[in-house]
Amino acid sequence: MTSFSAILDTLRSASDRHLDDLVHWLKIPSISSDSQRCEDVRAAADWVAQKLASAGLAVELITTDRHPFVYAETKPVPGAPVVLVYGHYDVQPVEPLEQWVSGPFEPTIRDGNLYARGATDDKGQVLTHVQSVCEWIAAGHPMPLQIKFLIEGEEEVGSESLEARLEGLKDRLACDCVVISDNSQYADGQPAITYGLRGIATYELSLQGPSQDLHSGSFGGAVMNPAIALCHVLSSMVDEEGVIQLPGYYDRVRPLDETERREWARLPQTDQEFAQAVGVQKLFGEVGYSTDERRWARPTFDINGINSGHQGEGVKTIIPATASAKFSFRLVPDQSPEELTDSIERHLKNVMPVGVTWELKPDHGAPGMLASTESHFAQAAKEAIRESFGVEPVLIREGGSIPIVTRFQEVLDCDCLLLGWGLSDDNAHSPNEKFRVRDYHDGILASAVLWEKIGKLNS
Amino acid sequence: MTSFSAILDTLRSASDRHLDDLVHWLKIPSISSDSQRCEDVRAAADWVAQKLASAGLAVELITTDRHPFVYAETKPVPGAPVVLVYGHYDVQPVEPLEQWVSGPFEPTIRDGNLYARGATDDKGQVLTHVQSVCEWIAAGHPMPLQIKFLIEGEEEVGSESLEARLEGLKDRLACDCVVISDNSQYADGQPAITYGLRGIATYELSLQGPSQDLHSGSFGGAVMNPAIALCHVLSSMVDEEGVIQLPGYYDRVRPLDETERREWARLPQTDQEFAQAVGVQKLFGEVGYSTDERRWARPTFDINGINSGHQGEGVKTIIPATASAKFSFRLVPDQSPEELTDSIERHLKNVMPVGVTWELKPDHGAPGMLASTESHFAQAAKEAIRESFGVEPVLIREGGSIPIVTRFQEVLDCDCLLLGWGLSDDNAHSPNEKFRVRDYHDGILASAVLWEKIGKLNS
Repeated sequence: MTSFSAILDTLRSASDRHLDDLVHWLKIPSISSDSQRCEDVRAAADWVAQKLASAGLAVELITTDRHPFVYAETKPVPGAPVVLVYGHYDVQPVEPLEQWVSGPFEPTIRDGNLYARGATDDKGQVLTHVQSVCEWIAAGHPMPLQIKFLIEGEEEVGSESLEARLEGLKDRLACDCVVISDNSQYADGQPAITYGLRGIATYELSLQGPSQDLHSGSFGGAVMNPAIALCHVLSSMVDEEGVIQLPGYYDRVRPLDETERREWARLPQTDQEFAQAVGVQKLFGEVGYSTDERRWARPTFDINGINSGHQGEGVKTIIPATASAKFSFRLVPDQSPEELTDSIERHLKNVMPVGVTWELKPDHGAPGMLASTESHFAQAAKEAIRESFGVEPVLIREGGSIPIVTRFQEVLDCDCLLLGWGLSDDNAHSPNEKFRVRDYHDGILASAVLWEKIGKLNS
Repeated sequence: MTSFSAILDTLRSASDRHLDDLVHWLKIPSISSDSQRCEDVRAAADWVAQKLASAGLAVELITTDRHPFVYAETKPVPGAPVVLVYGHYDVQPVEPLEQWVSGPFEPTIRDGNLYARGATDDKGQVLTHVQSVCEWIAAGHPMPLQIKFLIEGEEEVGSESLEARLEGLKDRLACDCVVISDNSQYADGQPAITYGLRGIATYELSLQGPSQDLHSGSFGGAVMNPAIALCHVLSSMVDEEGVIQLPGYYDRVRPLDETERREWARLPQTDQEFAQAVGVQKLFGEVGYSTDERRWARPTFDINGINSGHQGEGVKTIIPATASAKFSFRLVPDQSPEELTDSIERHLKNVMPVGVTWELKPDHGAPGMLASTESHFAQAAKEAIRESFGVEPVLIREGGSIPIVTRFQEVLDCDCLLLGWGLSDDNAHSPNEKFRVRDYHDGILASAVLWEKIGKLNS
């Protein structure tokens, strides 16, 4: 038996312990957007730092203005590549709470799935790499490459601290490839290598009408209703097929590559299956694009929340004093969040009805990203997935955003591997978030195989 | 001294007691739309029933499926007219609570105003008539006419019980004129007789998109966002000048009478003063109409509340599963709420984007109303106001709705007097609702003078 197959055996026999670890971590409600949860966020950082330290890695908690980075590294291996594993220990908010079958921070297994906020996004997924490395070292074998971990606590709120500190951490994070597991397989039983991500830009728009709510009888018709004004300006930003109406918005959008369009057209999921999975009767979107093209490679606009006036029981016939919306754009490579903000400001100035004042607050933004599908690292990942999940991975893009990835490519001048072990119906950002227990364990194995394959490459 | 001037003296000397009474009544949180407040609503009914009974009126609490009517009457006076005083003891909801300077049910006097929910709408105003009648009888003088009181508890939720029971109460409520004080003077120091009201129709529209909130990255562009769909359909109902876009919506709208347009053009308030009073920099509205025409005699559309997705702190990049809005129309005489509902249904079927399901729930509706400005009763009201407030009233319409008034005209075949003692900045339906203490006392005097003048008319 080779030393590597001994490591794989160790990994397989430790699956109960691996699951216990994840359950412990998921119990910590590390919601980074909630200022009341700072201590919980910190506790989630401490948990994974302790886990890495107890396996013998050199660990440091790098403090920031908000939530710390957990940094850890194994010993350098001269001549072998250096891999940086990036992930996050913070999670999304949990409302609407009443839609959770079990509590978001009471991890519960049902039908082979572990349900909890953060199960797939991203505690469960990043922990696959932590486990593979910790077990490898605990088994007493030298690792064939150096692994660095950077696990942050602000991914769900825009990774601002990491953005700000990345240049300064350039030497410490130096690597040949960043490995990130924070997304999904293409479909159940069909793992993927994700070579593209959309960018993001998020905003809050607040409108102020009258100085307070007014009686809609005495004042209706003479005073602009800010909820109506908000509907008008939000409607003006996108048409009913999802085509964004901001002037120049598509100027920098790269046309899709015909090769990838052909590849994606071969992917097995039908529109009908997709519609059923999300619970809608009909899909929608830009004419001339397939569902995967629309969600992976076309820019989009979504309202994430909207709020005005009376929302309680019964009727309250008012002109509300205020109306506000949170909205976000997904960007494709070459689109700039900064240019977008300017464009929205100009557009709002043009279309905003009289009788209201308004404020646009950009929150966070990041450009999209594309990685090579032909590099040695991609080759190693294909083999690792084949050997662990038992199928050839497909090559896809993903519609979500990992804002820091493009910055890693720029600052660290490294390759990038996005290896999602989750499923698209894992309910990331939704009630009843889950991670399939089997995918967690297969992900741990695939991670170990990946280290073994990359260890054979020259740096 | 005549017996009537003795009554007036009594009224003037009892002002402290009158104010105490109102404060007691206002402390009862009789929010009719809130099913948690049923007992409070009942307590408000009991309070005024007790007040009328203790003055010797025959009082009955007429139970309904929801909140009871308080009915009371003085002795019949053969040959003299019968007047029905209509008002309501229920009040609007109070949120946003944090904007109240003092608690909505802790009546507080500041700068000569009594602040509390219901101060002007309608406890304070209807109590002026209760006080004038109770004091008149307590002073030992026979009233020169019969007064009936009908004070209900569902005015703020559409007067459904009264609508349903009105035909059955026709004989008991039989009268020559209905007197209602539930609106405003034209401006500070300029009381008015209001001869027209707008009608109303209120709705809730609910949209369902995906079966739960979705990650806007993984799904954005391929799944219709119900908040965007809602903005599109709400925008499609009205343009930016307030012109309603439903097909045929203006077909039954009466053109304004040139005489009343000339009269209203002479009213003293400028647009600048009006804008300042409501706290906006610019007014808005239909081209070709003045501010008073827009709010009194033109039909309008307002969004009263809108709700979708994430409204808490920070960013949550989702496609919300649902979006909903409460909205209302103000109607002018000859427009029918039932026809409007059909028209909205048809319009929504035409404009609703694919990928969402929807439900429209009509809440309550009532047509608009116009009364005579030349009747004997109007004449008596002009004199009563002149003698009590010291100025000639102006003749105006009002943009608000008192859904039951048109029904009184139809079923009871009676005249109608709308005598508002409040001010337009009394914040009815808003935080910091108030009623000027002086207007309350002058209203009590005017009410007594009105009984004296009407008592001299033949029935």
